[in-house]
Amino acid sequence: MKEIYAEVLTIGDELLYGQILDTNTKWVSQELDDIGIKVRRKISIGDKKQEILEALDECLKRSDIVLITGGLGPTKDDITKKTLAEYFDMELALDPSALEDVEDIFKRFGKALTEINRQQAFLPEGCKKIKNERGTAPGMWFEQGRKVVVSMPGVPFEMEAMMAKTILPKLKKHYTLPVIVHKVIKTIGIGESWLAEEISSWEDALPDHLGLAYLPGKGQVRLRLTGVGESREEVETEMDQQINEVLPKIKSYVYGFGDIQIEDAVGELLKSQSLTISTAESCTGGFLAHRLTSVPGSSEYYLGSVVSYHNDIKKETLGVEEKTLEAYGAVSEETASEMAVGIRKKFKTDIGISTTGIAGPDGGTEEKPVGTVWLAISFGKNVFTRKIQLPGTRILNIEYTAIHALNFLRQTLEKP
Amino acid sequence: MKEIYAEVLTIGDELLYGQILDTNTKWVSQELDDIGIKVRRKISIGDKKQEILEALDECLKRSDIVLITGGLGPTKDDITKKTLAEYFDMELALDPSALEDVEDIFKRFGKALTEINRQQAFLPEGCKKIKNERGTAPGMWFEQGRKVVVSMPGVPFEMEAMMAKTILPKLKKHYTLPVIVHKVIKTIGIGESWLAEEISSWEDALPDHLGLAYLPGKGQVRLRLTGVGESREEVETEMDQQINEVLPKIKSYVYGFGDIQIEDAVGELLKSQSLTISTAESCTGGFLAHRLTSVPGSSEYYLGSVVSYHNDIKKETLGVEEKTLEAYGAVSEETASEMAVGIRKKFKTDIGISTTGIAGPDGGTEEKPVGTVWLAISFGKNVFTRKIQLPGTRILNIEYTAIHALNFLRQTLEKP
Repeated sequence: MKEIYAEVLTIGDELLYGQILDTNTKWVSQELDDIGIKVRRKISIGDKKQEILEALDECLKRSDIVLITGGLGPTKDDITKKTLAEYFDMELALDPSALEDVEDIFKRFGKALTEINRQQAFLPEGCKKIKNERGTAPGMWFEQGRKVVVSMPGVPFEMEAMMAKTILPKLKKHYTLPVIVHKVIKTIGIGESWLAEEISSWEDALPDHLGLAYLPGKGQVRLRLTGVGESREEVETEMDQQINEVLPKIKSYVYGFGDIQIEDAVGELLKSQSLTISTAESCTGGFLAHRLTSVPGSSEYYLGSVVSYHNDIKKETLGVEEKTLEAYGAVSEETASEMAVGIRKKFKTDIGISTTGIAGPDGGTEEKPVGTVWLAISFGKNVFTRKIQLPGTRILNIEYTAIHALNFLRQTLEKP
Repeated sequence: MKEIYAEVLTIGDELLYGQILDTNTKWVSQELDDIGIKVRRKISIGDKKQEILEALDECLKRSDIVLITGGLGPTKDDITKKTLAEYFDMELALDPSALEDVEDIFKRFGKALTEINRQQAFLPEGCKKIKNERGTAPGMWFEQGRKVVVSMPGVPFEMEAMMAKTILPKLKKHYTLPVIVHKVIKTIGIGESWLAEEISSWEDALPDHLGLAYLPGKGQVRLRLTGVGESREEVETEMDQQINEVLPKIKSYVYGFGDIQIEDAVGELLKSQSLTISTAESCTGGFLAHRLTSVPGSSEYYLGSVVSYHNDIKKETLGVEEKTLEAYGAVSEETASEMAVGIRKKFKTDIGISTTGIAGPDGGTEEKPVGTVWLAISFGKNVFTRKIQLPGTRILNIEYTAIHALNFLRQTLEKP
């Protein structure tokens, strides 16, 4: 079976100036990969006609499909549509169905149609309009022999709906696609090199049609096994066998598979043990609660949080003793413990977890530098505590603390 | 003055599979832009020798500088170093100073040096080592005539330190650079098309050497004005005049300039009016507190939050009346108001702000569909409320609610 290759082309000066983060290419690549289309290259260029024409030409020489995002806005700096019309030698003409779509959108928002939005209904004659259900710029589908070029708006929310509803199904019809299977093992609490050492003999023995990659992230490493074949079932069975072989070597670091997040894993543990939890946060300032409540259905086990930024709140709402704060300070094992015990009691949950630390950039001392954090978990008759020392900036320290806290919870809940 | 062009090349199969979000190219582009180097193109390719060789060759034909990230890890899927040695026809040899660096890093973490990490000290003979202060893979600097190729690790934390400390200063020495100035106006609460209509006469009258771009984001649009010239002072003065001209047309939507976030703007307003604030969150689950506390120094005005996921907490900790919950439900103007009043009283702050809504995916009804949110602000003798209806997924609804709440706060604090 012939492999089908795609390239993702994102257009916008703002990408080259580094003024926005491109999340579209990741999302598009993942969706293509899922249906067996290989992404060969991702390219970002500016809103310049010559650059667009050249890049498009290159992409079409190398690959079967080019998916373009960006440059379709109603404002003057957006030139993708005109340039595509020129590339394919088509005239722009009013598309009545596109005009209807734009009018519908304006009706839905209860606003009057502006002239520049009306111009969005002009499309290159000969392309197929792709309906934009979430915005005013329609997408466009061009064919050149068997090759396909699709142009989509750059707003992720609009582009994603268009891909999911129209473009992916059309691509699946247009091409005969192979089977690519990825399986991801999610580990936490071990670095990439150490993980590689633990599993090196297994990795060396992997057959050629199975590939392994290490994907390090914040406090975590994802192990991705990729298999290619003709039958999904055969590839999956072989991969599952390999995974069963490697798991015992790294068991204590593995919290799940695929897209699962550490907060999902913790949520599953809480649900399966019918436990409820509450949080008392100082340095994480609500971010730990946010991670826990980002899970759909988390209200089943998550009851609430007190963010006690000010010491008075630690005392009055969480019941931390004045003398504890005086003797040990807010960032201490003792304060963390009293916070965890206090929130558990106040919110009547089975578990209370707390964070207290110095997120930075200010507030560090020689004894307790920026990045010093104490965690505590009150559970059963015990209070478990853990000290961590983080090296990052304020935002990173907040994020890492939440990840450490979630992993600490996982380990506590997994104890036999 | 000759313009200097750069390309950013990110290497890693995981990028093409869409399994990680590339934040490096944004960061690198922004830093280059700041010192007057133009990014012409950004490219992502897989860990494949042929692809790397071809892409590098193309980039060097088009541009002066190629900055590469990724593929330097100690594991077997990382091939960037070997491929660069081949491209520049150099042998890999042990670099004693690189070995020292790796040993130092391991000492700092109190771990034993592994053999695969020792191999990271082998570098192409003829390149210049760039010290990695935060990890084990050294960077590499290659020169070809006046052109420069730099290879850096893909871990953002390591790459950023290397760029800031060594690579940017080296590039500034190596080239004579022009002046590029960007000024960004941050607006909130108005869509791109409407904003464009408000300022169209001003935009049409802009001189050719000043460019304008609309950068839409979550609930916000950034207006970016770009000027090029020889003297920073002249360019800046002209741009400031233009900005002073346009500001009166869009005043009520503008919350600041440059990199400022809405939570920074709110923080400034609170500080300048010597006000303190607390939050009571239901649907945002701690995310509003997180946004407020992500600002360094926010402890000056931010005292704390109660995340009242469970109704008992709304009653017992925030003082929402049982009969209010029964008559109007948790997602209602009445409950939002009592939450805001309750947290303000409990935490003794000048302002209390609350969120209550249905983030989804479940919990919606015909009368109150997913995305229905009530906000309330208790300030002075008043309680201000606002209803919003959001169209997104759980995470987007949480994020948008926080942004709306922050803008609601800004408007309340800006009232004469």
